[in-house]
Amino acid sequence: MKSISFDNTKIADGFWKEKQDMVKNSTVDAVYNRFCDTHRFDALSCTWKEGDPDMPHIFWDSDVAKWIEGAAYVLTEERDEKLEAIIDDAVDKIVKNSDENGYFNSHFLVTEQDKRFKDRNNHELYCAGHFIEAAIAYNNATGKDKLLKAMCRYADYIYKVFKEDNTAAFTTPGHPEIELALVKLYKATGEKKYSELSKYFIDEHGAAENERDSNLFDWVNELYNQDEMPLRERSTAEGHCVRALYLYCGMADIAEQYNDTELLEACKRLFDDMVNKKMYISGGVGSTHIGEAFTVPYYLPNRTAYNETCAAIAMALFCKRMQNLDINSKYADVAERAIYNGFLSGVSMDGKAFFYENPLQIDTEFNNVNRSTKTKERFPITQRVEVFYCSCCPPNVVRFIPSIADLMYSCDEDAVYVHQYMNSETEYEGIHISQTTDYPASGKIHISCTAPQKQIAVRIPAWCENYKINAEYEIKNGYAYISMNGGIDIDIELDMPVVCVKANSRVHENAGRIAVMRGPVLYCAEGVDNGADLPTVAIDTSAEFVLEACDFILPSMTVAAYKEKASDELYSKAGDDYEEFTLKLIPYYAFANRGETDMQVWFLRK
Amino acid sequence: MKSISFDNTKIADGFWKEKQDMVKNSTVDAVYNRFCDTHRFDALSCTWKEGDPDMPHIFWDSDVAKWIEGAAYVLTEERDEKLEAIIDDAVDKIVKNSDENGYFNSHFLVTEQDKRFKDRNNHELYCAGHFIEAAIAYNNATGKDKLLKAMCRYADYIYKVFKEDNTAAFTTPGHPEIELALVKLYKATGEKKYSELSKYFIDEHGAAENERDSNLFDWVNELYNQDEMPLRERSTAEGHCVRALYLYCGMADIAEQYNDTELLEACKRLFDDMVNKKMYISGGVGSTHIGEAFTVPYYLPNRTAYNETCAAIAMALFCKRMQNLDINSKYADVAERAIYNGFLSGVSMDGKAFFYENPLQIDTEFNNVNRSTKTKERFPITQRVEVFYCSCCPPNVVRFIPSIADLMYSCDEDAVYVHQYMNSETEYEGIHISQTTDYPASGKIHISCTAPQKQIAVRIPAWCENYKINAEYEIKNGYAYISMNGGIDIDIELDMPVVCVKANSRVHENAGRIAVMRGPVLYCAEGVDNGADLPTVAIDTSAEFVLEACDFILPSMTVAAYKEKASDELYSKAGDDYEEFTLKLIPYYAFANRGETDMQVWFLRK
Repeated sequence: MKSISFDNTKIADGFWKEKQDMVKNSTVDAVYNRFCDTHRFDALSCTWKEGDPDMPHIFWDSDVAKWIEGAAYVLTEERDEKLEAIIDDAVDKIVKNSDENGYFNSHFLVTEQDKRFKDRNNHELYCAGHFIEAAIAYNNATGKDKLLKAMCRYADYIYKVFKEDNTAAFTTPGHPEIELALVKLYKATGEKKYSELSKYFIDEHGAAENERDSNLFDWVNELYNQDEMPLRERSTAEGHCVRALYLYCGMADIAEQYNDTELLEACKRLFDDMVNKKMYISGGVGSTHIGEAFTVPYYLPNRTAYNETCAAIAMALFCKRMQNLDINSKYADVAERAIYNGFLSGVSMDGKAFFYENPLQIDTEFNNVNRSTKTKERFPITQRVEVFYCSCCPPNVVRFIPSIADLMYSCDEDAVYVHQYMNSETEYEGIHISQTTDYPASGKIHISCTAPQKQIAVRIPAWCENYKINAEYEIKNGYAYISMNGGIDIDIELDMPVVCVKANSRVHENAGRIAVMRGPVLYCAEGVDNGADLPTVAIDTSAEFVLEACDFILPSMTVAAYKEKASDELYSKAGDDYEEFTLKLIPYYAFANRGETDMQVWFLRK
Repeated sequence: MKSISFDNTKIADGFWKEKQDMVKNSTVDAVYNRFCDTHRFDALSCTWKEGDPDMPHIFWDSDVAKWIEGAAYVLTEERDEKLEAIIDDAVDKIVKNSDENGYFNSHFLVTEQDKRFKDRNNHELYCAGHFIEAAIAYNNATGKDKLLKAMCRYADYIYKVFKEDNTAAFTTPGHPEIELALVKLYKATGEKKYSELSKYFIDEHGAAENERDSNLFDWVNELYNQDEMPLRERSTAEGHCVRALYLYCGMADIAEQYNDTELLEACKRLFDDMVNKKMYISGGVGSTHIGEAFTVPYYLPNRTAYNETCAAIAMALFCKRMQNLDINSKYADVAERAIYNGFLSGVSMDGKAFFYENPLQIDTEFNNVNRSTKTKERFPITQRVEVFYCSCCPPNVVRFIPSIADLMYSCDEDAVYVHQYMNSETEYEGIHISQTTDYPASGKIHISCTAPQKQIAVRIPAWCENYKINAEYEIKNGYAYISMNGGIDIDIELDMPVVCVKANSRVHENAGRIAVMRGPVLYCAEGVDNGADLPTVAIDTSAEFVLEACDFILPSMTVAAYKEKASDELYSKAGDDYEEFTLKLIPYYAFANRGETDMQVWFLRK
C-alpha cells in the first residue's frame, strides 16, 4: 500500500484552504524575512571569517532547507518567479560552495574544518537530510534539478565516508532525519545505495558500544541518543522526541523497503507506547524541556509540557507511514489529533509567529515565582515569536501545511483508503476522489470516487460514537469498507457532539479533570474571556455546550460552569465554595492570539 | 508581656512527653553519633591541615552548637554525666582554640585565615550566634559558664570589628541568627552592648547600598539577602525562609527591647504576608528549593514544597515573640499549626532520621521522569536520613522539642496567657499552672491556676468552631479572658471534629481539593495503606470519618472515599469513572515511617 502524494490533491475552500492560503500569503515571507535578518541565507555564501559577527550555526542549513522545501510545495500549486529567484540564488550558493567531495555545511565550511563528521551531535547529517528533501521537492515542483544533483553527489560522499571507508568518527547521526530523506532520495532517483545507507544508519543504532553515551552535553545519555539497544528491540519511546520520531519514520521506511517485519513490529510497539502512555490530548509529545524528551509513562504535566511543534509534525509523518504498513485507523486518528491541535497551536492565526513549545496550561501570575534568586524555574513562553535561536519549527510549518494532503489517501490494488477528511479533489493513477465537506466544522462528508479498485475504505474516527453511511459497509480495523464498481457516491455523517474527555487514572496531573473536545478538535479556556483562577473552573459533564461563530475558523462555545469563590483566608472550612458563570471555550489551536493571558485545557468535574 | 521559659514547665505524660522522651532517649545520641562520624566534633580540635580529608565546613560549628544547646535543654530536666562530659570536652576545645581575640570558627581557624569576616555568606556570625545560644543554655542547665565567658569575649570582638572599628568587609550577616542570639546574651548578662550590636545589624539591612547584591552564588540576589530595602519598610516575606525568619525573630526582639513600633509594625506585616499568602497548610514555608525561599503569593506546589524543618521551627520561634508583642491568638495558632505538622514531620517516629524538606505530596512513580537525560528534575527525598551534608535540621530538632514549652505561656501584670495546651505543671514567679489534658487527642483541658494576676486568658484556636468553658469569659483577639481571684479551676472543651479544609481559590495547585484536619493536626493518605493513584482520590466533604488507634500516637481515621477506576485508554469519554473504597488517613507528621510510599494531603472533592 502506498500514499497518494499531496501534489495529486487540490484542497478546496475550507479549514485547510485557509491555512494553506495563510502559509502562501504570509508564513513563507515571514519566515524568509526573519531568516534573512538572522543571516541564515547569507551563511550559504560561506564568506564568514573568524572575528566576524553571526557565525553560521551548525544547524542553520536545516532551517533554510526546510524553508526551501516548503516554498517548493507552495510552488507545486502555482509557480512564482520571485520565490523561485530566491531559491535559485540559494541553490547557486550551495552548489558553488560545496567542496570537492560534494560536502556542504555552512558552518563547517568556514570554521572548524577539521571537525567534519567528527561528532555525531553536530547536525551535519541532519542538515544534509533536509537539503535532500528540499532538493527533491524543488525538482518536483519546478523540474529544476541543480540542487538534486548536488545532493546526490553529497549523499554519494556520505555513503563513501560512512559505509564504504568508515572514516567518520561515528556511525549514526545524533540527530536523525537523513534516514527518511535517503529513502525519499532512493524513490526519487532509483539509486539503491541511498536506501542501503539509510538501512545502515538504522542498523547501527545501539550496535556500536563505544558510541552509546555521548559526553558532548551533560544532559545526554544513551537513551537520548536512541542507543541503549538495537532499534529492532525497542519497545518504549525514549529520548529527544523529534529525533526519535524522525528516526521512527526512517525505520518505517526501511521496514517497507526491505519488507523488514522485525523493524515494523518495533515501529508498532513504539507507536503504541507513545500513544497509549506518553501523548498529550493535543497529540503533542515531549513532557519535559530537559532534553526535549519523552519521560516515563503517564507523566504529562500541562504547564511545562514541551510538545515541540516539530514533534507533532514528526508524529503525523510517522502516522502517514504506519497507516500504509499496518492497516488500522489508530494511525490516522493520531495524525488527526496532532494536526488540529498540538501542531496547529504552533503557528499564530496570522501565520507569522510560532510556538516551539505547546503547553496545555498557562498561568501567567506564576511564571516568575523565584523573585529572590537569580536562578528561575522554567516555563514555556506565553506568546508566539517570529524566529527562534533554534528555529526549526517555523520552516517546518512552511513545509507541512502545503503538503498536509499527504495524510489523506493510500491505495493498494484492492482498495482506496480515505484517512483524512478535507474538502478537496484528487487525481492519481486512474483514481478520482472528490470530497465535499466543511469538516471539521461538521462531520458531513460527501465522497465521489471513480477508481479501478474494488473497495473504498473510509476511516471512522475513534472520537465518533455514532455515524451514518448511505451504503453497505463492513468495519475492519476502524475503516468502513464499501464495495465499488468503477466508482461510488457516498454520504458519510459522523456525529460530532461536544464530548468531555477524561485522562487515564495514571495521569495524576489530570486527576478529577476533563477536557472538552468536538470531533478531533480540542478546546481551551483563556483568561481574556474568563477571568482569573482558571484552574478552579469546574464543568458538569452533562452540561449543554452552545456553539458560536468566532474569529478562529471553527466555532467557539459557551457552557454554564462553576468557579471557586474568592475569599480572604488562605485555609478555611470547605463549604459551598463555587459560583456559576458562563465559560467560553475556543479551539486550543487558537490560544495566545489575543495577548498574554491564562489558558486551561483540563477542567474540574462538577 | 514576657514568655514563661520552658524550664519552668514540666511536661507530663502525653503527646509532647512522648516526643521529649524520644529526643532524650534517641535523638540526642543519634545526632551526636552522626556528627562524630562526619567529623563535626573533631573539627573543634582545629588540627585539620591542607591535604587532610574532611575539611571543616564553614557551617559545621552551627550544627555542633545547636546540638549542645539541645543537649543542655535535656540536662535542664535531669543532669547526665556522660552527656556533660561530651559537652565539656567540646567546650574545652572551643576555648583552647579560640584565637587571641576570642574568634572561633573551626573552618577559618585552620584554612583561609585571611578570609575572616570577608564575605557575609560565610556563616561566621551565624555560627557565632548558635554558639552564644548554646553557651547560655549550658550555663542555665549546669551553671558551667566556661563557654558563656568565651562567647562573651567573642561577642565583644564582633562588636569591636563590626560596630566600633568597622573593619569587616560587610555590615550584616548573610545568614542571620546572631541578632536574636545577641538579645538573648544581653538578657543573660545584662550587657547592653550586645543588644546594641543586634540592633546595629537590624538597622544595617538594606542600608548599605554596596552590599545589596552578593555575587557569591549565582542564585542569590538582594531579596534573598533581605537587602532590597530597610527592614522597617518591609511588607512582604522574601528570600531564604530560615534566614528570613531568624531575622524576623531578631527584629521582634529589638522591637521589644527598644520599644520600636516601626519595627514591630514591619514584623506584623511580614507575619500576615507569610501566613495569609505563603504558608502551607502544614505551617511550613518555602515553596521552592531554588534559594530555599519564599516565592510569590499563593504559589504553593505540593510535591516540590521545600518547607525546611528549620523554617517551621523558626516560624514557631517568631510566633513566640509576636504573641507577646501583639496580643492576638493568630500567632499561637500558627505556632500550633507548625509544631504538630510541618515541624514534626521533620523527624521520624523513632527520633533517628530527618527530613530537611517536608513536601505535601509524594508520587514515587514520577520521581525519576528524566530517564533519557543526565540532568533530572528535582524532587525532595522520600525517606528521612540520619544526617545531611548541610545538617542544620537534626540538631534543631534536638533543641526545639525539649524547649517546646517555651511556646505555652506569657504573663504581664494583669494576666496569665495560655497559648498552647499540653499536659503539664508550671511554676514561675508566684504563678502555678497545672494543665490536665490529653490534647491534641481530644480538646478537653482542665486548667488549675494560682497566680497574683487578675485574669487568665486562654486561646480559642481558630480551627475550633464550638467550645465550652465552665466559667464566665470575654473573647478578645482570640483569647477567652477569665477573671481570677488568686486562682481558678476551669474546664475547657474545644470541639474537635474532623474538618475538610479548602485552600484559597488563588492557590491553583489545590483547586477543587480539600485537606483533612482534626483540631490542629493535618492528615494524609499513604500508598502503603491506600494503593496507587492517590491524586485521583475524592472525598465527600460530608462523609463520616471514623477514628482508630494507630502506632503514631494520635489516631488514624478511615472514610468512605472514591478513586478513579483503572482503564486501558489514555483518553476516553468521561462517565461514571469513580469507584468507592475505604480511605485510611494518618497524621501528616507520621508520613514516610513505613518505607518509601506515595503520600497525599489534598484530595479531590466528590
